[in-house]
Amino acid sequence: MRQRVSLITLGVTDKERARAFYEALGWRGVGGEGDDPVFFQAGDMIVALWDRASLAADSCVEDSSGWGGVTLAHCVGSRDEVDTITDAARTAGARVGREPAGTFWGGYSSIIIDPEGHPWEVAHNPGWHLTPAGAVFLTEA
Amino acid sequence: MRQRVSLITLGVTDKERARAFYEALGWRGVGGEGDDPVFFQAGDMIVALWDRASLAADSCVEDSSGWGGVTLAHCVGSRDEVDTITDAARTAGARVGREPAGTFWGGYSSIIIDPEGHPWEVAHNPGWHLTPAGAVFLTEA
Repeated sequence: MRQRVSLITLGVTDKERARAFYEALGWRGVGGEGDDPVFFQAGDMIVALWDRASLAADSCVEDSSGWGGVTLAHCVGSRDEVDTITDAARTAGARVGREPAGTFWGGYSSIIIDPEGHPWEVAHNPGWHLTPAGAVFLTEA
Repeated sequence: MRQRVSLITLGVTDKERARAFYEALGWRGVGGEGDDPVFFQAGDMIVALWDRASLAADSCVEDSSGWGGVTLAHCVGSRDEVDTITDAARTAGARVGREPAGTFWGGYSSIIIDPEGHPWEVAHNPGWHLTPAGAVFLTEA
């Protein structure tokens, strides 16, 4: 198994609201007609929004109706960008779990929680290498 | 906000067991000492394994102790690879939620559920473009 994630699907109860949230932050999705997922090309992988009950059934799991142990992060190149994205997410309907602040690991981050309850850490991590295109590497490639 | 995911953190209760599972499938992690996360470079983003309770606290969410609406997928270039990875995952300790079979969307996939309960769809999707390096694009880039 190659060391890769091809697709992250976020289960949602209101697909149009979720799509509007991410599009308010500058993302552009495709698809989404009827019961179809909305897909976002995200670098060299894909993010999808799909009906949460359908995703649970398709994933052969029971939905525990809350957070289930997965958190995403979005790295940016400066503390200012963390502040800007946090404010934009709040305006777009996110709950801000943590306001931007220094972290125990030496970076600076916030937590934004999308309208469906999926948390994202918005982070500036000076220990990782962030390319101009937005790729992130543990050590400079 | 750039259309990117930088990091996916999977909350785990037994970090060494989870690391051993992914390493049995050919992944190679770094870090993981003490309470530190294990990090896997996955293409141009990163996957981490970290204590689930710490992740919930850091993510400002309540843990509902099950699946919470996020499913990952791993795309491969053929049906045979779906079969091979599914068998390897079973041997490594995954529960196979669905055996490999044709899907309603015209592909072929299985569901493997890691020892911590995180499901992955292992999929061959002839409608997406998979590069030799494992990048996945909605339309050929």
